[in-house]
Amino acid sequence: MAMKKRWIENGTFVTMDETQPVVKGHLVLEGDRIAYIGEAHPGALVDGADRMNGSGLVFMPGLINTHGHAAMTLLRGVADDMVLQEWLTTKIWPMEGRYTAQDVRWGTSLAALEMLKSGTTSFVDMYDHMDEVAQVVEASGMRGVLMRGAIGLCPEDVQREKLAEAVQFARSWHGKANGRITTVMSPHAPYTCPPGFIEQFVQAAHDLDLPLHTHMSETAAEVERNVREYGLRPVEHLEKLGFFSRPSLVAHAVHLTDDEIALLAQRGVGVAHNPASNLKLASGVARVPALLAAGVTVGLATDGAASNNNLDMFDEIRLAALIHKGVSGDPTAVPALEALRMGTVYGAKAIWQQDRLGMLKAGMKADFIALDFEQPHFCPHTDPVSHLVYAGNGRDVRHVWVDGEQVVDNRRCTGLDEEKIRAEAQHCYERLISAI
Amino acid sequence: MAMKKRWIENGTFVTMDETQPVVKGHLVLEGDRIAYIGEAHPGALVDGADRMNGSGLVFMPGLINTHGHAAMTLLRGVADDMVLQEWLTTKIWPMEGRYTAQDVRWGTSLAALEMLKSGTTSFVDMYDHMDEVAQVVEASGMRGVLMRGAIGLCPEDVQREKLAEAVQFARSWHGKANGRITTVMSPHAPYTCPPGFIEQFVQAAHDLDLPLHTHMSETAAEVERNVREYGLRPVEHLEKLGFFSRPSLVAHAVHLTDDEIALLAQRGVGVAHNPASNLKLASGVARVPALLAAGVTVGLATDGAASNNNLDMFDEIRLAALIHKGVSGDPTAVPALEALRMGTVYGAKAIWQQDRLGMLKAGMKADFIALDFEQPHFCPHTDPVSHLVYAGNGRDVRHVWVDGEQVVDNRRCTGLDEEKIRAEAQHCYERLISAI
Repeated sequence: MAMKKRWIENGTFVTMDETQPVVKGHLVLEGDRIAYIGEAHPGALVDGADRMNGSGLVFMPGLINTHGHAAMTLLRGVADDMVLQEWLTTKIWPMEGRYTAQDVRWGTSLAALEMLKSGTTSFVDMYDHMDEVAQVVEASGMRGVLMRGAIGLCPEDVQREKLAEAVQFARSWHGKANGRITTVMSPHAPYTCPPGFIEQFVQAAHDLDLPLHTHMSETAAEVERNVREYGLRPVEHLEKLGFFSRPSLVAHAVHLTDDEIALLAQRGVGVAHNPASNLKLASGVARVPALLAAGVTVGLATDGAASNNNLDMFDEIRLAALIHKGVSGDPTAVPALEALRMGTVYGAKAIWQQDRLGMLKAGMKADFIALDFEQPHFCPHTDPVSHLVYAGNGRDVRHVWVDGEQVVDNRRCTGLDEEKIRAEAQHCYERLISAI
Repeated sequence: MAMKKRWIENGTFVTMDETQPVVKGHLVLEGDRIAYIGEAHPGALVDGADRMNGSGLVFMPGLINTHGHAAMTLLRGVADDMVLQEWLTTKIWPMEGRYTAQDVRWGTSLAALEMLKSGTTSFVDMYDHMDEVAQVVEASGMRGVLMRGAIGLCPEDVQREKLAEAVQFARSWHGKANGRITTVMSPHAPYTCPPGFIEQFVQAAHDLDLPLHTHMSETAAEVERNVREYGLRPVEHLEKLGFFSRPSLVAHAVHLTDDEIALLAQRGVGVAHNPASNLKLASGVARVPALLAAGVTVGLATDGAASNNNLDMFDEIRLAALIHKGVSGDPTAVPALEALRMGTVYGAKAIWQQDRLGMLKAGMKADFIALDFEQPHFCPHTDPVSHLVYAGNGRDVRHVWVDGEQVVDNRRCTGLDEEKIRAEAQHCYERLISAI
């Protein structure tokens, strides 16, 4: 059977490919791949293709959310503006403690809706009841980098159970849904996992040939505690436990010394930068210009909706472009294009898929989005990169394709029932809130 | 003739009125005022009223943008991520130097479209060719606090001409359009106006019984220069020139000492806080928690689109709630409700209209907006204030009323021709860009 072909003409394409950054012309997708992108007519390639007029739209690679906890959408707006420990112990943990598989299902479905409609095509998810998450990813058409995140502050038999669950999940889902699902091993954080528990995850990652992900150096207090308990700052601590011997991604990395940055660069560790969450929880401002200068791959992320409180990656891109200028006093810090790279190409590299995601280029996976540029805030039409970063927003996204399939068509998710999901999520929330 | 009446039922109203913060029920508007808001049925008051079902919508006071240069929308995305002086001298000033009255007309029309569609009902505008701006405000149905901003780095006869123009404009438009237009006297900034020129504006403000507005202490360099040239920091300098003897509003106020904050509080000076612009131009982060603690009225603002690059006040509200937490390390700094006050009630006070704007309350002007809350990023329905601040965005605005008139109906501006304005703005931009 011939592969499905679609031909988009008259589009403006922000490719993130340095050989042709902005293309005004044509894109052809064939099956799950981009077959052609260029200004010249694609010729015979488009024989028999579905044809679409891309005029008035700006196309770009789908956004990659490199760290989060999707099911936490159920806790959106439950509690804000509180001191971290009080927020966790009086609000978040009591509600999360009551989560069932159904809550994870509907909370993740809600997250998938919100992410797809705002242009995110791939997301990293660390949570519990991950089979539910994987099923939502499968149904939604999104791409997910999934892991059972394990907290090790528990008896050894419970630790063993969690590790076994994480391994079982990683093994059964890796590569599923035409490769849209990949899996990762993930001890939650150095401050919630004893060293031996982390080492078991590292060993499992070696055995399964999978990458590793964890939270690291989010707050100054956590770094101090690591030094107090283990005599090392978190980067050296994880290095000593062998964590960076695997392809690895650390979330937050707000509090880093120059030496730590150098070590992350040397070991090829990716960083998931969560600007909104770090600001909202008052964790601080990550040293992103220094990380980028050192050659560390920095992706962007929303974190969970309880500490953001939205999953719109355009907000993170804009924040990344703005805050590092304001805090450093250097207006050239993190230029618009660099912020957009963090949301696309660098994100792809952070999740070890730079060979197929993050760029509009022949041969890459057809994961891309189209924004409605015929709006006042995008007028006049000057530099589309500037407009995407400084004026764009998830609500400007009109269409989304993942793996060659159109998963959002004129702002409707094709694989998800939005009204049902919102109603079910509301019910889940009402049951959870009744407990606190 | 009986005044027009409209009755909105089944709405959720975030009132900003501390006596009833969130009302689930009814709002009645009569003529240009709110006649009733409450949970109980309004009774005979709604006889003969147009009836509207507010279910699924969250209503709140229209947003107040306390500082900007609307016509600079024509320069959106022309140049970003540059050092301030280079940006001004090689890009912004050469293009602004070519502005005609027509450019101001279409640039301001574009800004009005963008502001109204994103929920801003009142804006402060400091620019040139202000008759054009006033005409746009009149046609759009918005509320404008307008002034001819004057730079005094010119020969005395040109200074005199500018002052006369500013006076003439202020006199002819103050109170026009059923009071939707008010005027202000505005020397551009202490670093662009000799002391004598500022004193002439202060005198004119006294003569006309009008308030004053200026840029102040936006950058550290500007403060240093003020000290070098006049032996005083900007606050004391303006105080000495009599500026604060009038009701006054200063834009930016990023670099302030404790003594300066105390003086602003004592003199009742309002501050227009521009978080995005201050970050993008790397001016720094204003001491907003200290200003609020001292009792200074802090409104929010977008500044011109060239340094933002959008006019969505929800972005400024969210930034105000986020950055001061991240920079201070205090997660309770600028809570969501306080950020929302900055965009509404405090903004109303900053423009000297707290008796009629900024709150949904019987007797206040009917300036309010309705957001579509049946969307994934507002689910579950928990705290609407949190959702507006942390998850909301101008593109969620569906309807807008100003002075009792519906000026945005289902995302269409009723008083402006969007397609014509976007086309004309594009033409203006193309002519201006051809010069540099």
